[in-house]
Amino acid sequence: MLTSKVAVLTAYQSPLEIREYEVDETLALGEALARVEMAGICGTDVHLWKGELPIPVPVILGHESAGRIAKLGEGLERDWTGQALAVGDRVVWASSIVCGECYYCRIKKTPTRCLKRKAYGISYCCDEAPHLRGGYSQWILLRAGSSIFKLPDTVPFEAIVGAGCALNTALHGIERIGVEMGDTVVVQGAGPVGLAALAVAIESGASKVVVVGGPAHRLKMALEFGADAVVSLDEYKTVEARRAAVCAVVGEYGADVVLECVGHPSAVPEGFELCRDGGKYLVLGQYANAGNVEFNPHIITKKQLTVMGSWAFEARHVWGAVEFLARSAKWCDLFSRQVTHRFTLDQADEALATVRRLEAGKAVILP
Amino acid sequence: MLTSKVAVLTAYQSPLEIREYEVDETLALGEALARVEMAGICGTDVHLWKGELPIPVPVILGHESAGRIAKLGEGLERDWTGQALAVGDRVVWASSIVCGECYYCRIKKTPTRCLKRKAYGISYCCDEAPHLRGGYSQWILLRAGSSIFKLPDTVPFEAIVGAGCALNTALHGIERIGVEMGDTVVVQGAGPVGLAALAVAIESGASKVVVVGGPAHRLKMALEFGADAVVSLDEYKTVEARRAAVCAVVGEYGADVVLECVGHPSAVPEGFELCRDGGKYLVLGQYANAGNVEFNPHIITKKQLTVMGSWAFEARHVWGAVEFLARSAKWCDLFSRQVTHRFTLDQADEALATVRRLEAGKAVILP
Amino acid sequence: MLTSKVAVLTAYQSPLEIREYEVDETLALGEALARVEMAGICGTDVHLWKGELPIPVPVILGHESAGRIAKLGEGLERDWTGQALAVGDRVVWASSIVCGECYYCRIKKTPTRCLKRKAYGISYCCDEAPHLRGGYSQWILLRAGSSIFKLPDTVPFEAIVGAGCALNTALHGIERIGVEMGDTVVVQGAGPVGLAALAVAIESGASKVVVVGGPAHRLKMALEFGADAVVSLDEYKTVEARRAAVCAVVGEYGADVVLECVGHPSAVPEGFELCRDGGKYLVLGQYANAGNVEFNPHIITKKQLTVMGSWAFEARHVWGAVEFLARSAKWCDLFSRQVTHRFTLDQADEALATVRRLEAGKAVILP
Amino acid sequence: MLTSKVAVLTAYQSPLEIREYEVDETLALGEALARVEMAGICGTDVHLWKGELPIPVPVILGHESAGRIAKLGEGLERDWTGQALAVGDRVVWASSIVCGECYYCRIKKTPTRCLKRKAYGISYCCDEAPHLRGGYSQWILLRAGSSIFKLPDTVPFEAIVGAGCALNTALHGIERIGVEMGDTVVVQGAGPVGLAALAVAIESGASKVVVVGGPAHRLKMALEFGADAVVSLDEYKTVEARRAAVCAVVGEYGADVVLECVGHPSAVPEGFELCRDGGKYLVLGQYANAGNVEFNPHIITKKQLTVMGSWAFEARHVWGAVEFLARSAKWCDLFSRQVTHRFTLDQADEALATVRRLEAGKAVILP
Repeated sequence: MLTSKVAVLTAYQSPLEIREYEVDETLALGEALARVEMAGICGTDVHLWKGELPIPVPVILGHESAGRIAKLGEGLERDWTGQALAVGDRVVWASSIVCGECYYCRIKKTPTRCLKRKAYGISYCCDEAPHLRGGYSQWILLRAGSSIFKLPDTVPFEAIVGAGCALNTALHGIERIGVEMGDTVVVQGAGPVGLAALAVAIESGASKVVVVGGPAHRLKMALEFGADAVVSLDEYKTVEARRAAVCAVVGEYGADVVLECVGHPSAVPEGFELCRDGGKYLVLGQYANAGNVEFNPHIITKKQLTVMGSWAFEARHVWGAVEFLARSAKWCDLFSRQVTHRFTLDQADEALATVRRLEAGKAVILP
Repeated sequence: MLTSKVAVLTAYQSPLEIREYEVDETLALGEALARVEMAGICGTDVHLWKGELPIPVPVILGHESAGRIAKLGEGLERDWTGQALAVGDRVVWASSIVCGECYYCRIKKTPTRCLKRKAYGISYCCDEAPHLRGGYSQWILLRAGSSIFKLPDTVPFEAIVGAGCALNTALHGIERIGVEMGDTVVVQGAGPVGLAALAVAIESGASKVVVVGGPAHRLKMALEFGADAVVSLDEYKTVEARRAAVCAVVGEYGADVVLECVGHPSAVPEGFELCRDGGKYLVLGQYANAGNVEFNPHIITKKQLTVMGSWAFEARHVWGAVEFLARSAKWCDLFSRQVTHRFTLDQADEALATVRRLEAGKAVILP
Repeated sequence: MLTSKVAVLTAYQSPLEIREYEVDETLALGEALARVEMAGICGTDVHLWKGELPIPVPVILGHESAGRIAKLGEGLERDWTGQALAVGDRVVWASSIVCGECYYCRIKKTPTRCLKRKAYGISYCCDEAPHLRGGYSQWILLRAGSSIFKLPDTVPFEAIVGAGCALNTALHGIERIGVEMGDTVVVQGAGPVGLAALAVAIESGASKVVVVGGPAHRLKMALEFGADAVVSLDEYKTVEARRAAVCAVVGEYGADVVLECVGHPSAVPEGFELCRDGGKYLVLGQYANAGNVEFNPHIITKKQLTVMGSWAFEARHVWGAVEFLARSAKWCDLFSRQVTHRFTLDQADEALATVRRLEAGKAVILP
Repeated sequence: MLTSKVAVLTAYQSPLEIREYEVDETLALGEALARVEMAGICGTDVHLWKGELPIPVPVILGHESAGRIAKLGEGLERDWTGQALAVGDRVVWASSIVCGECYYCRIKKTPTRCLKRKAYGISYCCDEAPHLRGGYSQWILLRAGSSIFKLPDTVPFEAIVGAGCALNTALHGIERIGVEMGDTVVVQGAGPVGLAALAVAIESGASKVVVVGGPAHRLKMALEFGADAVVSLDEYKTVEARRAAVCAVVGEYGADVVLECVGHPSAVPEGFELCRDGGKYLVLGQYANAGNVEFNPHIITKKQLTVMGSWAFEARHVWGAVEFLARSAKWCDLFSRQVTHRFTLDQADEALATVRRLEAGKAVILP
């Protein structure tokens, strides 16, 4: 009988627990069984661990993983794009499944806000069979209706997991807010979402991109990714100082587009200051509920800002991420190099702690 | 020698002072002299009186007035739309003049944020000749480059001043945020901007419009304007209660579009609650700096909101307001009926107080 | 054994044939059986009869019908919007089903161009079981995945069939091209699509709508629908004369938006002439391939036009049509009054001929 | 007395005539005198020479030139962007001046369609003083209101004139139609506009760009500019063959965006074939009236195309072109290398013939 070792969040802010489940290999129509080859530790996993988003526990964490098809249920013959799918194929899958039938899926065409959306590594209590619905695991059982993407040979696991859900998220967010050729852009935050947003802004033709954040090792990575300048929170300690440093690069009035990829509420009013009048602001990093902040709404009126939120991503954006990497050896290399820390499944708790302490570029588990 | 009686704000929160200036009738190229027939008291005048926006004093207030052409400077032969202009013509004029040359005018096509924008009734210290740059006055001297609009015979002074700069502002704001046929709309605020936004939303094909605000006499007017429902702040005392009352009309998930026309910062986080996921929010009322408010930026990400500010309006929107009224006897009548209080110039201070106390539909001065 | 009388197109340009099929009442998962109460004769049916679109024959025509639920397959408990569905309910259904999986459905979000789209009354050869896939029939078998809409009590069959697929089509097309409050609009064509486009343009806040077309009885209907003016092809015999008549209403430079709802290729170059520079042109009526026309592409560059095509509609737009009618007794009445000719199923061929001869407002079959 | 040698088009399809005019150095308010250092021969000059656009003759051709400020009229102290302007500065200027007051300038915000637009090298009969309103000249007198741009030191005359009005035109056109990151793009035409469109598409993040055109030396240049593939009209002789070659690169359904930069009417129906369903088509090259073509409007409806025209450009786009070159040594180099033929003013007629025969990358006059 096949078994799968898994790492489970049993209680908020407690160490992950290693468990072992039997793998039910009797797949129903449209299901798949995959061997997880690499599972990324997302910043959101830290938020989940802290209890900042409502989820069921115990849960096998891990919503940005990739692996190989081990078995295909009846009727599952093609990947999301229509390519033939076979046992042994290297694949990645969208973390979430939407219902396609609710008010948001149907009428408002906003499937990320599907009323019944469920995500691997987040929404499935692992006490319930078939248990294996998260990526911190040797095996994962993919539900019928999952969006599975065959990986091109040129896209290594390091690249797709190094890019992680951050790249999907950045593609969605920037699709919404729009970065046009010649725009000056500020990215707030140098974490995985920030670097992914930087990459997408560059590819969208931004004339200048400044990254505001830290720590130093991540700003160094931002420069390697192609940032025109970085503004360190350690060095520039006030909003005024940071605004001055940003404007020295993008021009005195502020940036055309500011992309918030931080997650701390205080980033938002600071970001409003970094926009030029008539500028655009994307609130991308506030995925978890990190509480309130004071701001002056007069600035939105007076500066005539456009502010948009963007929640997670659609299957379309996972396809976009695969394509983004497939068309560029450069980005494959840079996102692969973001993977600085590798752990075994038994070290899952340590892996999560590394991300919590902002020590890693990107930490991954090789289960 | 022609003289003009004027009402002057000499110090914040002090009574307006009645003065008399000589009228310099020697017009330069492109200038005009107009007899003010009616001057609206705008809510912004109250903010200016309180000192909530930086302006020079002493200043002749009055940025939403209309009158008759008394004299035309050389070269001024046509109104903004190209119609021939003659002494005696009934006209309205845009309150502001932009430079057409700065970063915002030229490169970013955001003339409302012109770096050198000046507005009648707001930006001109009346100690400086030719003094007469505000509407609380018998005469006004219009600078070369002013946008003057001949009023159709079907549009009475009451309609255009009753609509006031609120209609221009609403047209600009709704042009930015967009109200599409079938959208459910909430208007926060039942003052002149709120009623104008209501009118524009109705004409844009909104399927339902709910107005949240007060006091009672203004909500009654909102119903006369065509609101599908009103939600009184006096009756529904909590955000939760108001949200429930709104959703009973627009549907359980909230409105497609919410238009903030209040001015108090607390309206903004409440407004976010009234939007459906993926909805749009216009911050239109925060023209003055009324201070900070707490909010949770997580809601912008999670609900995937689009939030836009809109500042004042362009000359184009004054044209839009004249057209809006010209094509509808109904709206002419409703906006005219909004004029509930009429004052002489000597009563200017009392007129302003009436607006400050929210007693008026619209108060006007007949100088 | 239940049987269904049907009207079949067996060969292009030949009389429809009346047949009778057995009704297979053993519904599979998600299927439904409906009693057709009213079936509209669409202009497209004439094109299909002429052989201008590639379809399989024999085919039971009829893609704009409405009826009552007779039986619900397992798992089909709610309509497209989530309302509970029961035997006896008055319903309408989207004519087409898309795959949701192809390049156009998934990646490009253009489901109307689904590579596997099939439409009732158009795409199903009736030789194949279960035969009953068209509306010129007493009974219709709705496939699993059909988009079914419960009709509000206030929306009679006459209104929804009178509006027909023309209203769905107009809603989709105008959603694409955009009619904004204050726009001047020209509708080319006074058939069902033209009148529906007129209705949607009016509700979208058009300041003026001129309908160009014929014959006289349809132009009369256009005026009843609310057109500001009509321009008869019989009276104005040249493009120049029609342009002059249109511009007398919308202004010398032409209309902001022109909606082509004719179907004859020559309407398109004429329509370019009716747009102002920078104007928008919707090619909505060229659903069938009616051949080539000469035009000068220089006009698109010089006038800086935006030209869009729009093909059929999504299920979303059927919902939009039901809502459009549900919120307005006026439009229910006007679209109902468009139904000028009623036929039995045995008279189906005569019904089609009536439409072919442009004699009807809207002809319907009561099977 | 300063004199200026000029090359004049006196009659369509006749040799240019060399004349000499006195230079009136008494500048009025806001005017400037510039020494022309380099004048590009635009494809439009060939159309003008052929008589395909209505212009006054005799005319000094040349609407894409650059030079040095020789004298500044009173009040002209800054360039369009606000930089201080001095005698000796290297500058480029927008070819056209708009009125800022007409229906298109004011109400419709479409200044390229200004009713009173006049362009250097096109609209000024040189029999009228001050004669020097074209670029095929040693000196040019720039009217008050001209949009003058100081050139950064890093942008040589070869780059800005090599890019010519083609780059301004491409920036405007692509701003209108939109090329988004990841889009597949086809450019029809390998002339200066085609290459400029290629450059802008690449910088906008196109995933693939295929250039269809000729002759061979220009396709070679397209590959140097970064085209992913070129399709030669000499090699692929039918629309079907070219479509197949294009789809081999962009995918079987066609391109997301097709940019027409040819000028021959037949390019337009061919371009519709190259678009995927739901794709976008820019009619950019039909600046001159080159006559009619047959097409089937059914394709616009069925493929649900978006087709846009774009006429010339605004001053904003000249600024965009300067910025485009200023931020990239690569593009400065590539556009400079496009300048393959240099002529004296006396050789102006030969220069024009070279362009007429499609022999040049870009031909310029050094007056």
